Formats: sequence, C-alpha cells, structure tokens
Amino acid sequence: MTIKVGVIGAGNIGADHVTRLASQVVGSAVAAVFDVDAARAEQVAAGAGAVARSSALEVIEDPGVDAVLIASPGELHAEQVLACIAAGKPVLCEKPLATTAADCLKVLDAEVAAGRRWIQVGFMRRYDPGYQVVKNTIDDGTVGEALLAHMVHRNATVPGSFTSEMAMTDSVIHEIDTTRWLFGQEIVRTTVVATKPSPLAAAHLRDPQIVLLELAGGGVVTVEVFVTCQYGYDVRCEVVGSTGVVALENPTANALVTGGRRIEAVPADWRVRFGATYLTELQEWITGLRAGVVGGPSAWDGYAATAVAESAVASLETGEPVAVGLVERPGLYT
Amino acid sequence: MTIKVGVIGAGNIGADHVTRLASQVVGSAVAAVFDVDAARAEQVAAGAGAVARSSALEVIEDPGVDAVLIASPGELHAEQVLACIAAGKPVLCEKPLATTAADCLKVLDAEVAAGRRWIQVGFMRRYDPGYQVVKNTIDDGTVGEALLAHMVHRNATVPGSFTSEMAMTDSVIHEIDTTRWLFGQEIVRTTVVATKPSPLAAAHLRDPQIVLLELAGGGVVTVEVFVTCQYGYDVRCEVVGSTGVVALENPTANALVTGGRRIEAVPADWRVRFGATYLTELQEWITGLRAGVVGGPSAWDGYAATAVAESAVASLETGEPVAVGLVERPGLYT
Amino acid sequence: MTIKVGVIGAGNIGADHVTRLASQVVGSAVAAVFDVDAARAEQVAAGAGAVARSSALEVIEDPGVDAVLIASPGELHAEQVLACIAAGKPVLCEKPLATTAADCLKVLDAEVAAGRRWIQVGFMRRYDPGYQVVKNTIDDGTVGEALLAHMVHRNATVPGSFTSEMAMTDSVIHEIDTTRWLFGQEIVRTTVVATKPSPLAAAHLRDPQIVLLELAGGGVVTVEVFVTCQYGYDVRCEVVGSTGVVALENPTANALVTGGRRIEAVPADWRVRFGATYLTELQEWITGLRAGVVGGPSAWDGYAATAVAESAVASLETGEPVAVGLVERPGLYT
Amino acid sequence: MTIKVGVIGAGNIGADHVTRLASQVVGSAVAAVFDVDAARAEQVAAGAGAVARSSALEVIEDPGVDAVLIASPGELHAEQVLACIAAGKPVLCEKPLATTAADCLKVLDAEVAAGRRWIQVGFMRRYDPGYQVVKNTIDDGTVGEALLAHMVHRNATVPGSFTSEMAMTDSVIHEIDTTRWLFGQEIVRTTVVATKPSPLAAAHLRDPQIVLLELAGGGVVTVEVFVTCQYGYDVRCEVVGSTGVVALENPTANALVTGGRRIEAVPADWRVRFGATYLTELQEWITGLRAGVVGGPSAWDGYAATAVAESAVASLETGEPVAVGLVERPGLYT
Repeated sequence: MTIKVGVIGAGNIGADHVTRLASQVVGSAVAAVFDVDAARAEQVAAGAGAVARSSALEVIEDPGVDAVLIASPGELHAEQVLACIAAGKPVLCEKPLATTAADCLKVLDAEVAAGRRWIQVGFMRRYDPGYQVVKNTIDDGTVGEALLAHMVHRNATVPGSFTSEMAMTDSVIHEIDTTRWLFGQEIVRTTVVATKPSPLAAAHLRDPQIVLLELAGGGVVTVEVFVTCQYGYDVRCEVVGSTGVVALENPTANALVTGGRRIEAVPADWRVRFGATYLTELQEWITGLRAGVVGGPSAWDGYAATAVAESAVASLETGEPVAVGLVERPGLYT
Repeated sequence: MTIKVGVIGAGNIGADHVTRLASQVVGSAVAAVFDVDAARAEQVAAGAGAVARSSALEVIEDPGVDAVLIASPGELHAEQVLACIAAGKPVLCEKPLATTAADCLKVLDAEVAAGRRWIQVGFMRRYDPGYQVVKNTIDDGTVGEALLAHMVHRNATVPGSFTSEMAMTDSVIHEIDTTRWLFGQEIVRTTVVATKPSPLAAAHLRDPQIVLLELAGGGVVTVEVFVTCQYGYDVRCEVVGSTGVVALENPTANALVTGGRRIEAVPADWRVRFGATYLTELQEWITGLRAGVVGGPSAWDGYAATAVAESAVASLETGEPVAVGLVERPGLYT
Repeated sequence: MTIKVGVIGAGNIGADHVTRLASQVVGSAVAAVFDVDAARAEQVAAGAGAVARSSALEVIEDPGVDAVLIASPGELHAEQVLACIAAGKPVLCEKPLATTAADCLKVLDAEVAAGRRWIQVGFMRRYDPGYQVVKNTIDDGTVGEALLAHMVHRNATVPGSFTSEMAMTDSVIHEIDTTRWLFGQEIVRTTVVATKPSPLAAAHLRDPQIVLLELAGGGVVTVEVFVTCQYGYDVRCEVVGSTGVVALENPTANALVTGGRRIEAVPADWRVRFGATYLTELQEWITGLRAGVVGGPSAWDGYAATAVAESAVASLETGEPVAVGLVERPGLYT
Repeated sequence: MTIKVGVIGAGNIGADHVTRLASQVVGSAVAAVFDVDAARAEQVAAGAGAVARSSALEVIEDPGVDAVLIASPGELHAEQVLACIAAGKPVLCEKPLATTAADCLKVLDAEVAAGRRWIQVGFMRRYDPGYQVVKNTIDDGTVGEALLAHMVHRNATVPGSFTSEMAMTDSVIHEIDTTRWLFGQEIVRTTVVATKPSPLAAAHLRDPQIVLLELAGGGVVTVEVFVTCQYGYDVRCEVVGSTGVVALENPTANALVTGGRRIEAVPADWRVRFGATYLTELQEWITGLRAGVVGGPSAWDGYAATAVAESAVASLETGEPVAVGLVERPGLYT
C-alpha cells in the first residue's frame, strides 16, 4: 500500500520533504502540493509526479490524498491541522504545532474530540541515532538518575529577519522538546539570561542567549543558543546523572591531519547534520500509517513545547523567570 | 517502475538483503527466492511476499524477475553470474565474483562478449560515507599525493570453520578492493607476513596476519587482519599523502563517562558498522537499474580482487612475496 | 641561591608542597614546618630535612626562613598572611586568601601600605598548560571576542563535612578565578540555581548546583559544580567567542580498546589532574623569588575571588541574584 | 648533594640538556662543557655557570665533574663512553651508544670488565607518561598477550644532509628501543619495504619507508617512518593484544572550533612533544646518581638497538629480510 501524501508549503523544508516522500521513503508518493507561490508549487509538484493545488484546503480535502504534511509558515499551522482533523486525515506538522499555546489547545481539543490521534509534530531529533543513544542510556539507568543537562544549539548565521524571540520559538524549541523527551518530565519554568551580544549579530538580535529550563522533578537544563556563531552548525548535549554522564557530540568518523592540525569537520548546517534524521522520521511516519498507526511526537508534545517557548519569550522580555502553565494532560496522550 | 529482484541464497546476508529489498529500498520488490535449504527459502520468501523457487536457474530465468541478487556460497557465484548474463539480467553478486581468478576471467569474457555491463560486485564499502570522505580527500589533493596506507580489519570472533586462507579471500578482500579504489591503481604484489598467533584463535588458524599490498605506482598498503580480536568489529584506515593524512575511524557521536572512564562504543559486528552502507548499496543499485544503468564495482573489480586474494593465499603458504598477474583490462571497464 | 621556605600547615596539601619544595623544585629548600598536630609537623619536617616549629608565627619570624607557604585552614590565612607582610617575607597562600571579603581587604590594605607585593594566592590553574592554551587563544583573537563560557567542576566524592557553601568557597572559587583571568574582567553578579540533588549526595548537601557568573562586560559564565559525581574528577571549560570556540578537555594521550569499548581514563582526583600544575606553580614562585620578584595571582585576585564566592553563598541562601561589590582596585594591582 | 655534570657536545640537544641540568633539574649543576666549536662551548658554559674545556677528555677527567652527558656526534660516542668507564664516571649517552654494533660491543666489554653499570643510553621515550601507560597496560595483562604493534614516526622535515640510512639509525632506532622495551623481547629480523617516495623528499632520500621488526617471540611490529611529512611531528603506536588494544596518540587537552573545523594541535617537533620527557629522563638520572644508582636503558639496550638498526640499513640496501645476530647477554644486564 502506498500512502499518497499532500504537502502544504513547498519552501526549502517542504521541497526537501517532497523529494524524500517521492523518492527516498518506501511506501509513499506525493499526490498534491500547495504553496502560496503557485509557480513554486507547480515546479515542486512536477518533480514528484504530483499535481499542484491552489489552496491548502484543496490539498487536505483531495480524495486522492491519504495523509498531509504541513511545512507552511507556523502561523498557518493551527488552522491547517484543524482542517486535517476535520477531514479525518493523518498529518505530520512541522514544528511548531501552532505559534501560541492557546492555538495549540484548540488543536488538542479537536483531536481529543475526534477521539484518536491524527497528528504527529515534526520534532525530528527523536529519530536521530545519537539522541536515541542518550535517551536509552538514561532509561536503562546507566548514568543513575538524570539530574541536569547542558545543551548548545549554534547556527553559523541566520537571515536578517531572524529575531531574539525566534531563537526561542524556532531554535530552542528543539531543546525544549528534547529535554521533555529525554527526562520524561514537563518543564515548569524558564529563565532567559541576558549575555553579551556578539558584535557579528544584527543590531536587533540578542545573540547568544542562555536559557534555563526547570523540570517538574527539580532538574535544570542549561541551553546556550547562538545563531550567529559563524563557524558551523553545532548541536550537542550532555546529560548528567547521579553516577555518570552521557553526551552527544557531533557525529564523526574521519580525521584530516595537515598543517599542524588534526581536523574533524563540523556540520555546515542542519541539512548536513540532520538530513538522514528527517528521512528516518518520514519513513517511520509512513510505515506507521501503512499499519494504521499514528505515533511519534504528539499534539500534546507540540502544545507543551509551544507553551514553554512562550514562557521563554516572556522571560526574554522581562528578564525574570516565567512559570509554564499547562492544562491537564488529556487521556489521549498518556 | 518497480525492479522485481530474484534472490539466490537466503542465509544471513541473503535474508538481510531480502528484507532491505522488500521493505527498505525504494523501487524494488522481491519476486523469487532460492536457497539450498528449501524450508529456509520458503520462510524468507513468505516474509517478503515472494515465491520460493527450487533452483538458482529457476530464479534467474523467471520472467517475473528483472534482476538477480546472488548471496550463495562463493564457489557457486561464477556459474550463477554466467547464467544471469546469458539471461540478459542485471546481477548484484556478493563478493567474491568467483573463488578463482580463472573463473572470474570466464565471467569477464562473457560480459565482454555481451558487450555491456550486467554485473555489480558487492564491495559495499565504496558506499560508506566515511570511506567516501577518504576517497574524496585523496582525489581533491588535500593530502598531496597518496603514498601509502595502513588498514586494520578486526572481527571479534569467527566460526570454527574459518581458515587462514579465508582471512584473505573473505576479510582482506575488502581491503584489497578499498585499496584499488582509493588509490585508483592495481595491486601488483602481495606479501603475507607470519606473526605470533593469538592464543584465543583456533589451533588451525593463523591469526592475526599482516599483509603488504604493493601498488602499481610504488605505494605500499599494510593490512592487519585479526578475526579473533575478541573486543568487537574494528575496521579503520589511514592514508598517508605527501602533505597530510586522512583517516577513517569508527563512526561515533556519543560518549559515556562513568567509573573513571570516558567510553565510546566499538561496533559489535559488521551489521552494526555497515548495515546502513549495505542499504545505500542496494538503493543505488536499484535506482540505477530503474534508470537503465549498471554501475558500481564491476566484474573487473571482482576479478582483480580475487586475483590479489589468490596471490595473498599463495604468499601465506610460501611466506614469500607473490606477484599478481592481471590480464589486460578490457575496454568495457575503462 | 636557595630559597628557604617555611611551611604552615602540614595536611595533605601542605605535605605535598613540602615534598615538592624539598625535592622537586629547583632552588628551594624547606627550613621549617608548623602544624597544629605537632607529631605530624615533626614527621613532615624530618622528611624534608627541616625543623618543626611550635607556632605559625615562629615559622614566619624564623630568620632562617626566606619565604612562607601557607596551607593551613582558610580561617587562619588572613592573620598569617598579615604576619608575613609584617615580617617582610614573601608568601604563597593557598586559596582562599581569607574566608571573608572583609578580611581580604585587611590584607590588601596591609600590602598596599607596605608598598609592594608580598603575596601570591594559590590559584594554580593559571599554571596549567591546558588553561594557558585557552587563555592564549582568547588573547590572540583566534575565537573573536569572548562572549560566554561553560564550565564543569566535578569531584567523585567529598568528605561528610563538606557543605553546599563549601561548593562555592572551595570548589567554584577556582572557576571564579579562572573566569576573571580568562576574560580579564571582574564578576559583578552571581546566581546560584537550585537543581535536583543527587540521591548519592549527603542529605545536608545541595549537589549538584549551577552557578551563573555575570561579567562586567556583559558576558555570562555557567558553572556546574557537582562534588559527588562518583565517576572521577572532571574539570572542563568551553569559551565561546564571536567566531569560534576554545575548549579544555581532560588531557589524554592513551586509549584502551577492549570489550566493545574505546576507553580514555578520566582523572581520579585533583592530584592526578593537577599534580604537575602545582609543581609548575611552586617552581615559578621560587624562580621569581630568586630573581626578587613576586608575581602570579595577587592579593587582589584573592580578594575578588572571595568576594564573588561570598555573593554566591548569599545567592545560594536566597535563591536570588546577588551583586558583587568590590572596592576600587589599588594601583599596586594594576 | 649536587651532581656536577660535564657535557660533551653543545649543539641543540646538548645545549638544551645544559639548560635543564643547570636550571630545571633538582640536584645537578653543569661544571664543564666541551664542543668542537669553542665559541659555542664558551657561550653555553657561561650561561650555565660552567667552564668551557678544550677536549672531551678534559671534561671527562675533570676532577670537578661527577658525571658526564654525551651529546656529541654519534661516531664519537664509543670512544667517549669508554673514557668515562676508564675514569669511573657515570655517563648518560645520547643515542646511539655507538654507530656500529661492533663498537657497542667494545663498550659492553669494558663495562662488563668494570663489573658495574656506568652507562645509561638516552632512549628518553621510556620516561614518557604515554608510553608508560602502554607499557603498564601490556604488563598488567589488560590487553591479554601482546601480539603485534603498529607505529608511525613522522617529522615535518629534515635537513638536506639526512639520508635514508639515518631514517633507521636516527629515527626508527627509537621505535626499535620502544619495541624491545614494550614487548620485553629482542628483535631477531628486520625488513625494510620500499614504498613510493614523496615528491617533497630530497632526491637522494627514500621517504617514507616501512620497516618490519620481528620479535623473538614471533610477534611483528610495523613501523612507518616518514621524515618529510610536512604537517608536524607525529609519533604514535598501537599495541594489539589477544583481548584488546592499547594506543598512544598525540597528547591533547584542547580543541579549537572555528571555520567549520574542530581542531587539535599536532606537535610541531620533538621538542614540543618530548621536551618534558627529556626533563624527566635527566631528573631520574640525577636522582639515581645522588642515590648511587645507575639505571634506565643500559649499554645492552644501546647495543641491541644499534644492531637492529644495522640490520635495517642492510635490509634497506638489499630489499631482503636481514637477521639480527646478538651476542649472549652478559649477566650484568639481566
């Protein structure tokens, strides 16, 4: 059985997903593509043997579409995901699930009302082998009780439109989900600590930033986010347990020795670092759908991450710790 | 277009390939399976939605089979590959192409007579990202002129039936192909150097062994093969150029620190180390076939590797350097 | 010229220093030793060809003593250092210079009144080659402008008498000095963040703890201190600049591969990690004294570190950020 | 007690030793210096508070000289060491003990006739902490039975006067001693394997070269020597045992991340890599002499290493394996 996917949003990430679904994932095909840029949609659709549609809703309601992948701008996610639920179609929604916790709650309510899971949120790090080693090492007790963690999230550069708030909602949101997943706990409070800005960051951008994530169980995770570090894409973490430490470094297999230096490459960007991880994410999504199962990060995970990011934005503005208030977790997500 | 593959040999490697072709490779299906153990063939075929056949030839000549994958015992390869050529079907033959250089030449002759490439030989390391970095680093001149290399090939243990000669024909044959590919040169002479056997190796087994591979251009590659090293699967290489060195280590992304030790995992076996590489090999084979192209390591590569391994076996027996005599390379392979 | 040193305090650190000065440092001898445990003093003195004295003052005023090394309990340091100044003798005082900033100021005042430097404080990390690489890499601009840093300071275990406050005054005080030295700036505010305590830490001990050190220039340094990490002594740092990162890892030269693991040793304790560094510190002190020079970390450094540690203890108690108020820096220390 | 050392040869190594003995080693002073360049001897002597002498013999027979350090050209060593024995003075002789095995035997005979050890040969690697970890790991059985080893010895460049033979007698001689010491066995046969020369090596120089060292117990050690590798000084080894591997890498504690690369420094030359090791060697020599003991690598070690290097030079010329014939080991050296 082939899952025919409709893709909403054919920007960089969306187009990459189309390529994967059309030619790298087993059991999927791309049936329809929508993008606000119609020519772009035509081009991407043509490359995948799909048709271009003139609206997101057309994609969602297309009877030839079995499942939907949303890679549109974040502020459109809530409405599009709600339409998928209404249409009874499974959806893989790129993060964020919605840009506000309030909108996420609307999605949660709809899915709960539907009585079953339709939604997977695109927190792809959970599919990365390196993160899975960290998760398994915590879960099997090898480092004792997990107490705290240190994470860094660095990008070489960002577009001029990138803001200090986006460092929370677009970048740190990955560490937020990773933290919740690794520790199996909710984050209850965040603090964004102002630090010296890089002279190479845009004037409007506070960069780097340090974020403290406090867990329900008392642990604290420090996150450094630095989106103009210049040198590459550097995502690492170190979880400290009561009897040991487990770390995720940049994956490496090769060394070059020349000119007095032993050199290992640092990934240039997230495509280099996580390209294979995205493929695994999509493959597992499709494999699940073929078996009639929706799994992976849930709408609850999407809601919680957005709520935490929202509190981080608030802390960024006030300089004070900000509590995260989550609704009670519906039974659908336990 | 789906390539329907017939698989000959459903042992461990064959069965793994069936799983990959049936459920992990895009554009392929398994149509037929043969194994000398009919029950095994039935079982493996059933798991892939294929039919079991009662002979290799039945698989090859099955009109529902577009391409053949041979994972039978090495001494059967030549005959089966010849049958594929006769049937005009592309074939991916696990190494060795044949167990003697003379048999390889029969295959070469047949393919040359056919006037086109049908054969890819399963030297999967060429598809490993780490080896590709080494290859690219040599080719782009980053380490100057490649002069020599050091390679190790260690297995934790081998079955009791494994012999000293098999260390050449089954293990070092990978380093032989890797050397030819990395340097872009033929190997002209081999020397197997006797060294102290491990007390943990079987009495009939000379293990470890050191092999010197001399290249047409004058370079020398040292290979340590140690198939009872106990601790894991450890395949590494270091190519030394006139201005630098490029190395392939065990891929790693995680570290565990506990009990006074910083620990990185060593692969347990070749499945752990090269599982993803086999998948890439198969995917590229299928993708090529869908485009009407047979690429990858050729019958010439299979012949040259077997010829070098044959000389290494001769050196192992005599303790003397043994020259490798290759026929002239047919135009089909240039 | 041999510098004859009087040593006050013959506990573990004091006795180690006696051994170094008597037999590993060029140009020094131990002339006199005092310890509150007279038998201990006799024993340590005898091993170094020195005499035991019955009070710290006797050591300081001994005409056969050219310079004094203080390794007594911290609460005695101020009085003993003042006596050294009064006696006109150079002194190497183990950290802390004094247990309160107020007492440090008394020492500062006395040294300023004396009109010259007599005091070096035992912040030995400044003599570690690894830290010096970090310092030089910052200073030569290789990582651009230094923006922030992450540090960890872990001990396997501590005695039952160790308190949460001592984690600041005895452990983090090293990171405090390291931060001031690496960045060349004063620390203006500290925050101790409560995190989940290890179940293996004593009930009275809050461990691990996270400390934020805010620099005058706006940068922030995160410090994790974890004194019951069980697995070893693990002191590392990573300084993040506007164009790159420089890190200090555990020094390593060897790897052991066995049982599926590639293993590098983690230092068991500070003696293993910093033993050679202490020797360098003492050698440079003695070499300086032979040339008539007192250098190294000054009384001002000792004062500033104690003032910051004091603010960290206050933050530990209140959970709030606490400002560090330093007096104006006397000209003697610029 | 201060050991007053006379130094013969004030070239780079000799002058470094003078500095160490005069100002970095505890318990030594430099009393006299000879160099064939009288002005050089004057200058080096003056810097160490010593007097310049007009011949090696004057140094050796100087009643104010307690012990002799020989850093003259290798072809003078035998005669000078013999004079030390005749004068009854302990001597640390830089490698080689003598340039021919025959001359080494004369020295052995003289020392045996003297009935006690006077000679230590300057194989300083035995004092390197990294090599000591390898030695201890073998000796304590952690890697099972040591079976073979791989070593590399690379220099960035050499003077134009450096020859292919010197790669054996000056460079590989260190691996020869290291091998004998690590395995606790004599080397019985050597083979120098011709490989492709670097285009950056001088025309008269065969470089790199591969050397096989066969041990009495059957093990084989591969050595790559490459004295014009351009990129730095790179000395490493990996000893393979029946249950594990122990390796010595370049010591490292720091990493720099910038421009897409994670960089560890490779030592520029042997002074950077082994400077501290030379100091340990000298300190242990002096400490021993103060206790009336001559230890360390013996004249036997010097003889055996020269004999093996001689066989390697013969193999280099003939391309054939060359046996090493050692005399019976005198009781003085067991």
